Amino acid sequence: MENSWATFGRDLHLDLTGPGGVRAALLRALRDAVRSGRLSTGTRLPSSRSLAADLGIARNTVADSYAELVAEGWLSARQGSGTRVAERAPARDATGPARRTPGPARPDDRPRFDLTPGRPDVSSFPRTAWLAAARRALTAAPSEAFGYGLPAGRPELRAVLADYLARARGVRADPDRIVVCAGFMQGLGLLSRALGAAGSGGAGRLAVESYGLSFHRDVITRAGLGTVPLTVDDHGARTEELPALDAARDIRAALLTPAHQFPTGVPLHPDRRAAAVNWARSTGGYILEDDYDGEFRYDRQPVGALQGLDPDHVVYLGTASKSLAPALRLAWMVLPDRLVDPVLALKRTGEWQSGSLEQLTLAEFLASGAYDRHLRGMRLRYRRRRDQLVQALADRAPHVHVSGIAAGLHAVLDLPPGTERSIVQAARWQGLALEGLSTFRAPAAPGPPRDGLVVAYGTPPDHAFAGGLEALVSALPPDPGRGAATGARA
Amino acid sequence: MENSWATFGRDLHLDLTGPGGVRAALLRALRDAVRSGRLSTGTRLPSSRSLAADLGIARNTVADSYAELVAEGWLSARQGSGTRVAERAPARDATGPARRTPGPARPDDRPRFDLTPGRPDVSSFPRTAWLAAARRALTAAPSEAFGYGLPAGRPELRAVLADYLARARGVRADPDRIVVCAGFMQGLGLLSRALGAAGSGGAGRLAVESYGLSFHRDVITRAGLGTVPLTVDDHGARTEELPALDAARDIRAALLTPAHQFPTGVPLHPDRRAAAVNWARSTGGYILEDDYDGEFRYDRQPVGALQGLDPDHVVYLGTASKSLAPALRLAWMVLPDRLVDPVLALKRTGEWQSGSLEQLTLAEFLASGAYDRHLRGMRLRYRRRRDQLVQALADRAPHVHVSGIAAGLHAVLDLPPGTERSIVQAARWQGLALEGLSTFRAPAAPGPPRDGLVVAYGTPPDHAFAGGLEALVSALPPDPGRGAATGARA
Repeated sequence: MENSWATFGRDLHLDLTGPGGVRAALLRALRDAVRSGRLSTGTRLPSSRSLAADLGIARNTVADSYAELVAEGWLSARQGSGTRVAERAPARDATGPARRTPGPARPDDRPRFDLTPGRPDVSSFPRTAWLAAARRALTAAPSEAFGYGLPAGRPELRAVLADYLARARGVRADPDRIVVCAGFMQGLGLLSRALGAAGSGGAGRLAVESYGLSFHRDVITRAGLGTVPLTVDDHGARTEELPALDAARDIRAALLTPAHQFPTGVPLHPDRRAAAVNWARSTGGYILEDDYDGEFRYDRQPVGALQGLDPDHVVYLGTASKSLAPALRLAWMVLPDRLVDPVLALKRTGEWQSGSLEQLTLAEFLASGAYDRHLRGMRLRYRRRRDQLVQALADRAPHVHVSGIAAGLHAVLDLPPGTERSIVQAARWQGLALEGLSTFRAPAAPGPPRDGLVVAYGTPPDHAFAGGLEALVSALPPDPGRGAATGARA
Repeated sequence: MENSWATFGRDLHLDLTGPGGVRAALLRALRDAVRSGRLSTGTRLPSSRSLAADLGIARNTVADSYAELVAEGWLSARQGSGTRVAERAPARDATGPARRTPGPARPDDRPRFDLTPGRPDVSSFPRTAWLAAARRALTAAPSEAFGYGLPAGRPELRAVLADYLARARGVRADPDRIVVCAGFMQGLGLLSRALGAAGSGGAGRLAVESYGLSFHRDVITRAGLGTVPLTVDDHGARTEELPALDAARDIRAALLTPAHQFPTGVPLHPDRRAAAVNWARSTGGYILEDDYDGEFRYDRQPVGALQGLDPDHVVYLGTASKSLAPALRLAWMVLPDRLVDPVLALKRTGEWQSGSLEQLTLAEFLASGAYDRHLRGMRLRYRRRRDQLVQALADRAPHVHVSGIAAGLHAVLDLPPGTERSIVQAARWQGLALEGLSTFRAPAAPGPPRDGLVVAYGTPPDHAFAGGLEALVSALPPDPGRGAATGARA
């Protein structure tokens, strides 16, 4: 009879060695298994016949041992439900300090509304379409796909990505210059190490935007490179300053967010796109183009990837974390030819490869058009939220300037100087999680800090968006001129 | 009408800026897209109406542009199949050197039979059961599962692993001391760095078995630690030598394969298990237990994990690479409490987390009993192959001593001294890929080298096993005494 305990003796380690006969050993082994928690309360034991067969001992020995353990209170036997580990078996051994609870913080620690940036509305993950793609991909996959794969990633995914990136983002991509990685951070780490190793004398520096993510700067620093902030203004990063910065310090590359500066939300001005590429071209440096949300643009003319201007000097970095879900841990780099081998050499000795089945599933998801369909749906949804945000501000806080709304999953609301910290804090007290611009300011950034809120309208699930918007509007500072205006009108 | 080109203007980057009117810009943009390969041969273009709507231009402008490009040979229009990129469109721009073909080597470069170790029979991956588990897991998953996860891994998987490892391998596991990682190598890298950082003065060393995998030793070396070989004999690694080695050099930990030494195949003798744990306990060192194939044992009494003897001094490392497939990139460590925070701190700044959806799928696969069922089936299959190997040797090469057959996916065939290299080479010439023991010998290993073949009977798909076995038997050296014996009998 096939049942899940047929090979109990093999699946549960029972050590029948030691002093005494087989019966004593079996009793000891079963007691140990219960005491240590290896057999947990309520677990059903195999029939005495099948355990006896598995262990190669007499059935009566097992039956007698069961009976004795029932008598001792370790096991319980009930008609029709077999022999199980008793409810009140002696307490499990302590094997360390008190358990830490894994998983997210307790619900009451979490904010009611979350408008912090960094992830899309994960409640909209296309579970059904993804599973359908997984089914098609795994059914069609050759056997070798289940073995070890290439550090560059599955050829199927790289081929489909090359087509998709060319079509959707204007990237000039060859599958051989694509490296799939487990998230943007892994890609940036590999690139930083490759660029650090490439230079002669000293580890060199990377220019970063004066507003950006601190953990991106940390990845660069851990790779042994310094960071130099590049001022961000209303036209994006001042890339025209790269030559002067480079003359003073050894700049290997500049990490930019050209399509939608993170966090200020502005696109990089065409002149500055040209300046960035010109600097890289004339010095042999690189632009690292972080295209984290390039797929989400709400105006008619999308901004194509900078990489299209010069694939030999721009590294394109894209990710499924914003377009699908961070949980997938899938991102991709399109590398200049010179960087392919150094990056793969580093990847081979460390991260090696991402899971092949997820890669094959994403390839199928892209090839079948499901990715385009999902993006279209999400674009409509995020645009509607963006419009609701803009409308709510126009109605209830017209004095607050909003920017960065042409694209992406977040916008920036300017605040009066010196007020950001107290507004973020007050919002948190009221259950609304927000980030201020100061969170993203590079330590040595030039110029005065800018006060503002980074409002990630893409983050909450649909049902929580209206509430989050209401909480946001309530948290904003009052119009300084409003009392007078109201008075004048009255 | 919903079709995959409805938002062509958005999904295909068309830049309509530049000199001339809209029509000239559209012509230029479409030509560029075809020339660069962003629109590939045969791709169907959207209807003129929908592209016009997407770009916000007149329909006639699009229709005229299409007609002109058809006339120029860029596009082709056929009744009922719409407008497509023409078969003989002008050649795609070269964007780099000649393409390297991604993917495995050409079939004719590959051996006909592969008996090299390192992976299971991947043709037996349980695709249907895995997909069913994925469906259940993704359907039931909370939304937060699609966001960023914990560096330790999904709580669902750690909880199920703790139960499974206790039950099947005698591991004393608490979910809070489990860290899920993307393969054994990642785990070993994290541990090596944590152990290197923990010591005072100098980076210290790790004892490794004198026969083992070179890329494991490399991971340790790259973390800044030295390696010291520990002689492997018929009873496994000589762990009783650890105290003397440690006195001479600063040994932080010993990396062992207690259940089934890789590659020699012997289990670690009980006295040596005790010696290993005693050394770790008395010095504050650690045993790193690589339980790569612990689930595959063919004798009645499985060898439980060493970790059960002392969870505070033994790190247990398990993996899905041999039990399911390397492609999953899922492995797990059960850590002593002291190592949990240092390892997670390192993981947080680097690899962060493995894909959550694969983790949830594995959790469901384990919890549903599918993992046990798969292992039972594979155990039977591998045992049958093992028996066939032993039988074939008994029949056809009784002079060849085989060992390491009680467990795992490979066995070792002893060879006359000095013959290994030529036998491996000759087998390769005949299309049979094999590894010799010398491949796995640590550089500074003491004692004379041992000549032998590591025969991975677990590697080939079922249909290729008999052929591989035949090729193996043919490749073995003849019995030196056989001529005489045959003569005597005749």
